[in-house]
Amino acid sequence: MDAALIRDSVSAAMPPAERLFDELRERTADGPGVSRESYANGEQVAHDLAARAARELELEVSCDAFGNLYMTLPGRDRKLPAWIAGSHLDSVPLGGNFDGAAGVVAGLSAIAAFRHAGATPLRDVTIMGVRAEEASSWYGGSHQGHIGSRMALGLLNPRELDGAVSSRSGRTLAEQMRLAGFDPGAAQLGRAHLAPERYLAYLELHIEQGPVLDNKSIPVGIVTGIRGSARARSARCLGEYNHSGAVPHEYRSDAVLATVELCHRLDCEWEAVRNAGGDLVFTVGQLYTDGKAHSITKVPGEVTFSIDLRSEDLAVVERTTALAKQLAAQIAARRRVSFELGDFNLSPPARMDVTLQREFSQGARCLGISTMALPSGAGHDAQDFAHAGFRAAMLFVRNAHGSHNPHESMRMDDFHLGTQLLTWMLAR
Amino acid sequence: MDAALIRDSVSAAMPPAERLFDELRERTADGPGVSRESYANGEQVAHDLAARAARELELEVSCDAFGNLYMTLPGRDRKLPAWIAGSHLDSVPLGGNFDGAAGVVAGLSAIAAFRHAGATPLRDVTIMGVRAEEASSWYGGSHQGHIGSRMALGLLNPRELDGAVSSRSGRTLAEQMRLAGFDPGAAQLGRAHLAPERYLAYLELHIEQGPVLDNKSIPVGIVTGIRGSARARSARCLGEYNHSGAVPHEYRSDAVLATVELCHRLDCEWEAVRNAGGDLVFTVGQLYTDGKAHSITKVPGEVTFSIDLRSEDLAVVERTTALAKQLAAQIAARRRVSFELGDFNLSPPARMDVTLQREFSQGARCLGISTMALPSGAGHDAQDFAHAGFRAAMLFVRNAHGSHNPHESMRMDDFHLGTQLLTWMLAR
Repeated sequence: MDAALIRDSVSAAMPPAERLFDELRERTADGPGVSRESYANGEQVAHDLAARAARELELEVSCDAFGNLYMTLPGRDRKLPAWIAGSHLDSVPLGGNFDGAAGVVAGLSAIAAFRHAGATPLRDVTIMGVRAEEASSWYGGSHQGHIGSRMALGLLNPRELDGAVSSRSGRTLAEQMRLAGFDPGAAQLGRAHLAPERYLAYLELHIEQGPVLDNKSIPVGIVTGIRGSARARSARCLGEYNHSGAVPHEYRSDAVLATVELCHRLDCEWEAVRNAGGDLVFTVGQLYTDGKAHSITKVPGEVTFSIDLRSEDLAVVERTTALAKQLAAQIAARRRVSFELGDFNLSPPARMDVTLQREFSQGARCLGISTMALPSGAGHDAQDFAHAGFRAAMLFVRNAHGSHNPHESMRMDDFHLGTQLLTWMLAR
Repeated sequence: MDAALIRDSVSAAMPPAERLFDELRERTADGPGVSRESYANGEQVAHDLAARAARELELEVSCDAFGNLYMTLPGRDRKLPAWIAGSHLDSVPLGGNFDGAAGVVAGLSAIAAFRHAGATPLRDVTIMGVRAEEASSWYGGSHQGHIGSRMALGLLNPRELDGAVSSRSGRTLAEQMRLAGFDPGAAQLGRAHLAPERYLAYLELHIEQGPVLDNKSIPVGIVTGIRGSARARSARCLGEYNHSGAVPHEYRSDAVLATVELCHRLDCEWEAVRNAGGDLVFTVGQLYTDGKAHSITKVPGEVTFSIDLRSEDLAVVERTTALAKQLAAQIAARRRVSFELGDFNLSPPARMDVTLQREFSQGARCLGISTMALPSGAGHDAQDFAHAGFRAAMLFVRNAHGSHNPHESMRMDDFHLGTQLLTWMLAR
């Protein structure tokens, strides 16, 4: 298909895409946003709607033991390694309509464009609806999220599913999967349902979850890599409660001032890394004294906090994690407190395939779409495919108000451009 | 009375004092501690027990419109300015048995010692059971605590009582006072029930709420002054919630890292003041992100925190308060957040009377009691008497585990020594 045909065919696919987004929103609405709980009703509704759209396009529809959805347009040579394109269909609680779903709808729209053009691609194109990418926002415990993709890719130890517990239902993720009719027991570390040799590459379109494209007025981004992270989910600092006026400095074990020093020194390190041209983000998203015990007139005896370190460069993540531990030990000794940082969950960075990035740039020039290269600070299923040995690439679509909130605002015009570029790649 | 007679007479008063402490503990027990809520049942029980003990000593017992209790031993010359000695009879929630009550029991024991010795003091001795010194721990809002003493001394604007709201009952302090049978309307700023010209001085014995006497193995402290304070009860930092991975540094409005910088810089200022020999304590007793909105993977958009600054030197309190505001403004501009520190409630420091301190030292030498001079970091009713123009002095009794908790551990031997010294002063 040439550029003009791709534009026309994708245009024809936009009205049904918009209707699908609208139906997704209505049927999973939760206040101003949407809630599509992993392995629960909201996610299932999204899978059912995607499967219905796939059947309307006469695709081969199947499921793996973990509930991941595969919708395949047969190619001219079915023996060739296939394209696989997709994203997740769950959302965070009270999330937005497009985070995840846009990638699946874009894939289905690309296939609709093939159908509209009367074209058959050289190789199979499989659109994947991934389960439980957002499981971290529904399940506590020590698991690492990205459940559906990691199970399909043989990257998940099934014990993780027993350690993930829902604060709402009290059920483990393993129990919830069984309840939803799937088989967590089929997950095996090192044994993949999806083998990299059977696929040419994994492609994922996703809304940008930051403000970069919007601020630069560029509709589509080509992702260079996905930041890795090290996370301490519930670090603690333990001191001793005491009267704030009566206890002099030298007898205090102040958990707040110790934690504050640790966080501020890590913040200074972050600045130093940036100034040296390195890639790092540092976030303390949760920080709290104990509501039952704290008081304005007590030296605080306990603080709970989280640390989220991310970088495209694994060495930076590891170095900063080590620094956090070292600073905590120094500060604890000096301030008569103890730190329990707990284990840092490590998720290594993933490089996107350089050839695919170059090809996306060519396609964008060919279609007259303005793009820029940027890293992904958020995690995506694409990183799991990259870790499993797939060539992987991602497109970002401009989006004004961040994600993981009801105010995402991807415009259909931008989605149209992103879907054109995805279709161009699949049509090569 | 000479030293030997004081020792013997106070010894004779100790068994009933111990029984009174035990009955106070039993009748206001709350789990491992005691709860004597201001203007509610627990406080009333303590007032009833004190009044019963006073009647057994044949004292004149009366109450003011605010429920403060006065128990008077008539002197030989009733026209002379009287001694007034006492403390409060309420406690913090789940507090200890001695914080407050020790001062009233010591006063009653001193009078019992007079009775035992068959001695009549030159001037009237009034023991005061003060109401609602701990009201801050029971009532939120913008009031400044020390309700009973400030009402009796004409230092309280009655509007404060409408602004103080109990989180348990939802009632204002004015409503609760009326319910308890008292008359908050009788409080008038500038019009005192207790006039300084009618009294020689106010004396207060209290457990030390810090570890200084215990660490130095000294049973009794002579207080040099009470630290003043400036408190921001619920300061806030407002940023913007965002994806922790996807939003680069230059687009963030991170409420935690801004608050952490503010607190750490005030901590550094505290160290500088100490190193220069100045008196300052700095406490951030409460610091928390919003449990409903925060997440390990979100840039935090809001932090609530408290600031408690104390010093014997009003200029240090004022200078540090100004510095906090100035730093907050600088940090807010640089980090794209806003700070709402709110008003700092200012309570000026109070010097204890130098002559009375010297006389207590003489008495201690005379009685063979080891003492040391130390400031009070905690607030006490004595500061209100000093602010109202009374000569005021305080004795601290050694206490191992701080106060405002069930583990206070004043020993009766130390209480005995403190009561001897109080009796010595009243007998002069």
